[in-house]
Amino acid sequence: MGTVSGNSSGKSGRRTRLSPQRRRAQLIELGVELLASRPLEQISVEDIADRAGVSRGLLFHYFASKHDFHVAVVQHISSDMLERTAPDENLDPMEMLRGTVVAYVDYVTERPGTYVSMLRGSVSADPDMRSVFEATRRAMVERTVTHLPSIGIDPDATVRLAVRGWVAFVEDITIAWLQQQGISTSPGPDDPEGGSALTREQFVDLAVAALPAVVASAQFASSG
Amino acid sequence: MGTVSGNSSGKSGRRTRLSPQRRRAQLIELGVELLASRPLEQISVEDIADRAGVSRGLLFHYFASKHDFHVAVVQHISSDMLERTAPDENLDPMEMLRGTVVAYVDYVTERPGTYVSMLRGSVSADPDMRSVFEATRRAMVERTVTHLPSIGIDPDATVRLAVRGWVAFVEDITIAWLQQQGISTSPGPDDPEGGSALTREQFVDLAVAALPAVVASAQFASSG
Repeated sequence: MGTVSGNSSGKSGRRTRLSPQRRRAQLIELGVELLASRPLEQISVEDIADRAGVSRGLLFHYFASKHDFHVAVVQHISSDMLERTAPDENLDPMEMLRGTVVAYVDYVTERPGTYVSMLRGSVSADPDMRSVFEATRRAMVERTVTHLPSIGIDPDATVRLAVRGWVAFVEDITIAWLQQQGISTSPGPDDPEGGSALTREQFVDLAVAALPAVVASAQFASSG
Repeated sequence: MGTVSGNSSGKSGRRTRLSPQRRRAQLIELGVELLASRPLEQISVEDIADRAGVSRGLLFHYFASKHDFHVAVVQHISSDMLERTAPDENLDPMEMLRGTVVAYVDYVTERPGTYVSMLRGSVSADPDMRSVFEATRRAMVERTVTHLPSIGIDPDATVRLAVRGWVAFVEDITIAWLQQQGISTSPGPDDPEGGSALTREQFVDLAVAALPAVVASAQFASSG
């Protein structure tokens, strides 16, 4: 992430010349930073322009609308999450899986409010946002499925569906777990599940163990 | 469901006197019927009043706003689904589970468009709708968890979280499965997963087998 942000520019109005590529990245990263303290729908183009020390007009040169900017921010977070959780191909399959889950838990616990509001807040029903989330889930499914043949599992339609369901399983228990720890869902209609929260270790164990478990279920289902 | 609807009233303008209780139920059921052919956000209060042969004013006597009416329709569908899928306590646990899953698959395949648009359409982010869905999921989790002690499973926090995740797993694979069969998600941004669709039997097998699988994962996680 970094803080390319207001350091070299900011409210002083002093402008820094950046390449178009870097300017765009700077604007998106400013959006990501703001997202730590407020939901996406409360991030205005004026806020970003002001913090970047650029005119609103310049911002609209990079993003056609506030909506486009918001989508770019969500896209950035999703890509970043996928990179941070990329499987380490040097490990054996179960260690690779655990590494990915641990990186994912690190990622979401660094920005719990962002994660919950992105996936359960009012932006979550926007078609463009849904496309980004859906593409992210599909990428997670694909990279998981890729490793199955090496451990003797044929990724047929049932297995693929089970892996997809596992991604939804992890997403849902992550949100419930973050809420159990008192993470507010701004704007949050969900109530936390009752009961005490799992430790980070228990949570990781559950998410990791559930994958081979549902894949085995799929193999059972396929075999009739 | 039935078709209390336009039979005894309809566009003719002839009004039928119903008790407040029955009138309310009639209006909701008309909403449920219309939902089979269009997304909720396209169901207007005028449509319903017209079909029921009542004035718009009378409809607002029962529901303070179009939004309240929509929430009541979703609430009705959720309660109906819970009743239709209630576990048969006379069966042994695995048969009880299979019975519930089969009833659920029957329920959603009777109204695939409704199911997908409710859970993935633009209404899905509305806080009141989310509360209904969340309460429905919680009811599914609770009634599942209730049966665990009888088969020797302590429903601790980890097991409860796994059951919750299983509900999300089933919901997600159901939507993917319906989409694989060409159910359109109006207004649908999701692309169907590639690959051929599972048979109904394979799908039920997967959803059923996944529950004991993730519960076993949770027991493993809890034991450290």
